[in-house]
Amino acid sequence: MSRSSTNDPDGSPARSHTLAAIVSIGDELTLGQSLDTNSRWLAQRLVERGIVPMEHLTLPDDLAGITAALQRLADDHDLILCTGGLGPTADDLTRQALAQASGDVLIEDAVSLEQIRTWFAGRGRAMPALNAVQALRPSRGSAIPNEQGTAPGIAAHISSAAGDGADCFCMPGPPREMMAMFDSHLAGLLRPPAGRTVLTRSLHTMGLGESEIAARLGDLMRRDASPLVGTTASWGMVSVRIRYEGPGPAQEAQRAIRAVEQRVRESVGQWIICEQEASLAAAAVDALRRASQTLTVVESCTAGLLGSLISEIPGASDVFAGGWITYSNRLKHSQVGVPEELLAAHGAVSAQTAAAMARGGLERGGADHCLAITGIAGPSGGSEEKPVGTVYIAHGNRHPQGQHALIDVRRFQMAGDRESIRQWSARSALAILWYALAGRADTPLLRQTVRELH
Amino acid sequence: MSRSSTNDPDGSPARSHTLAAIVSIGDELTLGQSLDTNSRWLAQRLVERGIVPMEHLTLPDDLAGITAALQRLADDHDLILCTGGLGPTADDLTRQALAQASGDVLIEDAVSLEQIRTWFAGRGRAMPALNAVQALRPSRGSAIPNEQGTAPGIAAHISSAAGDGADCFCMPGPPREMMAMFDSHLAGLLRPPAGRTVLTRSLHTMGLGESEIAARLGDLMRRDASPLVGTTASWGMVSVRIRYEGPGPAQEAQRAIRAVEQRVRESVGQWIICEQEASLAAAAVDALRRASQTLTVVESCTAGLLGSLISEIPGASDVFAGGWITYSNRLKHSQVGVPEELLAAHGAVSAQTAAAMARGGLERGGADHCLAITGIAGPSGGSEEKPVGTVYIAHGNRHPQGQHALIDVRRFQMAGDRESIRQWSARSALAILWYALAGRADTPLLRQTVRELH
Repeated sequence: MSRSSTNDPDGSPARSHTLAAIVSIGDELTLGQSLDTNSRWLAQRLVERGIVPMEHLTLPDDLAGITAALQRLADDHDLILCTGGLGPTADDLTRQALAQASGDVLIEDAVSLEQIRTWFAGRGRAMPALNAVQALRPSRGSAIPNEQGTAPGIAAHISSAAGDGADCFCMPGPPREMMAMFDSHLAGLLRPPAGRTVLTRSLHTMGLGESEIAARLGDLMRRDASPLVGTTASWGMVSVRIRYEGPGPAQEAQRAIRAVEQRVRESVGQWIICEQEASLAAAAVDALRRASQTLTVVESCTAGLLGSLISEIPGASDVFAGGWITYSNRLKHSQVGVPEELLAAHGAVSAQTAAAMARGGLERGGADHCLAITGIAGPSGGSEEKPVGTVYIAHGNRHPQGQHALIDVRRFQMAGDRESIRQWSARSALAILWYALAGRADTPLLRQTVRELH
Repeated sequence: MSRSSTNDPDGSPARSHTLAAIVSIGDELTLGQSLDTNSRWLAQRLVERGIVPMEHLTLPDDLAGITAALQRLADDHDLILCTGGLGPTADDLTRQALAQASGDVLIEDAVSLEQIRTWFAGRGRAMPALNAVQALRPSRGSAIPNEQGTAPGIAAHISSAAGDGADCFCMPGPPREMMAMFDSHLAGLLRPPAGRTVLTRSLHTMGLGESEIAARLGDLMRRDASPLVGTTASWGMVSVRIRYEGPGPAQEAQRAIRAVEQRVRESVGQWIICEQEASLAAAAVDALRRASQTLTVVESCTAGLLGSLISEIPGASDVFAGGWITYSNRLKHSQVGVPEELLAAHGAVSAQTAAAMARGGLERGGADHCLAITGIAGPSGGSEEKPVGTVYIAHGNRHPQGQHALIDVRRFQMAGDRESIRQWSARSALAILWYALAGRADTPLLRQTVRELH
């Protein structure tokens, strides 16, 4: 294990944090009643710092189980990040487990107790007796302040017969409290490895399937290559991940990643829409902003999902004016002017209706672009001619090269359940807009079967 | 360990599946590039069957690591469900790890190979050479058909020196393929314990904070109680979970759960909106359907999120007509008729604007109810008078007891980041509608600071 130059308080050289485990604690997680999003967030923060998350573990509220897991993890890892189980109620057992795993006893931390009292006082309440337990910590450990709630974090070292043991940091489970604690207090306590670099780069494509991307990447995806290249697919988007892990300095890692990225771009560059953490919606908002253009949406089967993805992006209001959720035919007619005869002749799920929705949105919303979606998300509503998964997406552009608005209508045959069809549809609409703004409106998308220009 | 009456193919009594581990495999998961949702889904399916998920584990694409983890898990569990790592590329290592962990070799499964060829032929393509590797399975294991993709699943037994070992089922990582394979082929292979019952019940409340719920539940939440009662909080909703785990028959478990549920309802029943898997949106859609009434929405800061939550529910179109995403002031005025003077005098985030949005939505949409949301989701846009998190939610009801539409406007001070404020706002709007339909419109919600009737 590499050693950094920082020292422990007792003067011995402090080991760097190289191999991490992330532990989430709570019955509601193991039983599937809640979805764990903390582990992913923490993993990203560790990777950014060159620390490799080797394992995520989710455990129930069981004292013996948590204690045993912490001891096992201390054998193979030098850093353990825990979330959950620090609440005031009887099912919160992380404090005791950490004390047992580190061979220590719990004592009351006077500073923590005062902080908890102050937290309640700030809300006009006396501290309930129940909450005093949150001020406990192992005697050789230390408390980590929580500005967002009543549960202080805890830091302690767990020894291991197999090696140097692990530094363990326990944080509260609510994501908001966990994130604030990590950013304000914990990030500074981590010791990324000095002699070892981990660097990743993600490039997100839309248009080709995963196997087509893999075929184009060829040897770049060999398992013994360095940097390693992998792919993952999600609702029409295929992400290419490049990962360097080795003894070289950061400069060398960056050079190696850049060289592979160059080769990835040569193979599949024309389908790359966004990078790293940026979402497709962020890329679309960014492209609109650079073009000084604006957008409205008219949504039927997605019914707000597209607008929601766009408005997740801070500052989206610069380019996104809003739109219409025309779930019923009545609103399609009364609010964006789709002719009743057209709805009667072609149906709500048709190229004609999609085009009329986009045209109506352009006319009434006054934006430069309008994306319209109408389709059959299922589970019912399909027919032989238009099975579940039939989706029409129209992109209206008020200011193309010519003088008239151009409407690009595409038919898709999406697969999967209601949720997949809706998510894939909203993402395809964003990709159509992005390609149009990039001057490559004729790029076909995955699952697209027909394209017409009106 | 309890034994069921079914027999293994070789005639020995087949052990039942009691303690399960769920394993997710992929660098993109451990590195935080993708969010694992499979584990939660599988945990729910196991719990429904009385099998307890004791641990979720997420591992990188590393052969030795996966192999060692499978062997360790076979010591303490009798069932292991794996997802991921069955693709055709070099970073897909689950097949080899399973063979090594079960002391076996990989052979080609002729039926699987034919199914993969057929899958490609159905899409007008020859099978790429790369995909032949997906037909491999351990020689003593068996293949599980995949109707949704090219990766067959694998079943194999992993022995353990510490006990009887574990049955291991490996499924592909894409959620759609995994879910279809589980439901069609795997569920029937599970052997829930005959002499041991696990039963859970979840009741979801909106209106009180988690500590208030806990205080009202009192002794019911004792850690040594059976059934066990726990709580979790998410965006304003506090869920109460009741869990029975014991040797009794299903009847006794149900009786025990019902008795505790009765006491939970006596303590916090007036805040319970929905149960089990039902979402708040499903409860609202259901309440509208029972009242034969309809809904539109007018969304500013949530910009489609509320419509999206409602339209996630299959059949929502019976009661949900759609609405407007009035992200810009211009659309607030032009599309739902909020007077420009009113916007100028009070601002877009005000009780007056929220009320006008709801009134305009009622008038133009023709539905019985209209929910309007306007607020400051941040990170920027806050002021001293109206900090980030200030949200107004208006509920317009066309047909209250009197003759005139009634508009109920509430001010909230939400906490957290942009995503929290948006999610909490959309859920609060649904709760306001639900309480109104239940005849208890005056129920205050968490974070609500002011209520006015217009």
